[in-house]
Amino acid sequence: MEFQSYFPIWDKLSPAQQSRILDNLVLRKLEKGTVVHNGSMDCNGLLLVNSGQLRAYILSDEGREITIYRLFDRDICLFSASCMLRSAQFNITIEAEKDTSLWLIPVKVYRHIMDESAPLANYTNEIMAARFSEVIWLIEQVMWQSMDKRVATFLLEESAIESSARLSITHEIIANHLGTHREVITRMLRYLQSEGMVKLSRGVVELLDEKRLAALRDM
Amino acid sequence: MEFQSYFPIWDKLSPAQQSRILDNLVLRKLEKGTVVHNGSMDCNGLLLVNSGQLRAYILSDEGREITIYRLFDRDICLFSASCMLRSAQFNITIEAEKDTSLWLIPVKVYRHIMDESAPLANYTNEIMAARFSEVIWLIEQVMWQSMDKRVATFLLEESAIESSARLSITHEIIANHLGTHREVITRMLRYLQSEGMVKLSRGVVELLDEKRLAALRDM
Repeated sequence: MEFQSYFPIWDKLSPAQQSRILDNLVLRKLEKGTVVHNGSMDCNGLLLVNSGQLRAYILSDEGREITIYRLFDRDICLFSASCMLRSAQFNITIEAEKDTSLWLIPVKVYRHIMDESAPLANYTNEIMAARFSEVIWLIEQVMWQSMDKRVATFLLEESAIESSARLSITHEIIANHLGTHREVITRMLRYLQSEGMVKLSRGVVELLDEKRLAALRDM
Repeated sequence: MEFQSYFPIWDKLSPAQQSRILDNLVLRKLEKGTVVHNGSMDCNGLLLVNSGQLRAYILSDEGREITIYRLFDRDICLFSASCMLRSAQFNITIEAEKDTSLWLIPVKVYRHIMDESAPLANYTNEIMAARFSEVIWLIEQVMWQSMDKRVATFLLEESAIESSARLSITHEIIANHLGTHREVITRMLRYLQSEGMVKLSRGVVELLDEKRLAALRDM
């Protein structure tokens, strides 16, 4: 089975622990746009991405969004199982950003093994530290970076993810990633267009000058 | 020794692990204002607060600050030992907000025990999940709360910590907690004063109407 090669500390689990996971593993296919985890409403299990892309975000009472991190092949999503951690008191929504195939490890199974396995508990620690790093980075961005730099950073990141300079993305979606209003993004993109860094057309942002966008990002 | 009663999972450690900690433990007294941990510059160990108060904050390149969490008696500070976690890629500064007495557990000692002890690794997980919750709360505040609500929240929290309605605190310090400029705080405090909720004098903010401040916070 392919799962073993996706799970980094597989060899550090006992044969009993390994079969317990394999016996309870569920492979799921999700269509783009599917919400996999919704705040504190559910707590199915940990998600290991086989292929595709997940997005974790916070939702305000008024329906505004901000992306806190994204998950790609081989990434593991811990907070879809946040009920597993007594001290995890927050609501994160997780959504498939592309058609995604993933394995779900039920909470009870993971928790049970983590209680007895130092390697699994330490692996979980590393995942959480990685997410914590991303969230601190986000605070730094939100607090101290101007919106033009944040948009440039986002466009370059998105272009790297898609391996394309032509991004099919609306201003609304960019606004939801960055936690701002569509109007703000439209204004910013028009500014970048007037500077010759991007070209805008319906539902498309095309990066024309990645060098200058990178210079803006790193300024 | 008092340490044992401050360390929640003491009984779940083996006698060898317990003596390893006790043999390497350092008790430190810090004066108010001492920086205990500075970004990625040092990595001495975990700090367990005996008495006093620590503040963890992020510092911008321009010297601006925002508090990300605070630690009180019996709280443990993990990120003063962030080098222990390979995936912890962020710079946090930790400072004594009051005269503080704390125990330092050297990184190597903690890491060694955590590698073999599932209870210690899981305890570390819980600490990190708690800090993660605080940081997500902070993002929600920064993104979606107006500054008047954030100031009201801060003043009420501070008043609870100090068990006093009379706070000896400057506008500058409040600004550093909330990640904004002194002028913004001064304007906000004057507004709250004009509404009869606080009274300002040199270096002092006095809460006059906690009920209305709480109503503002919970609005």
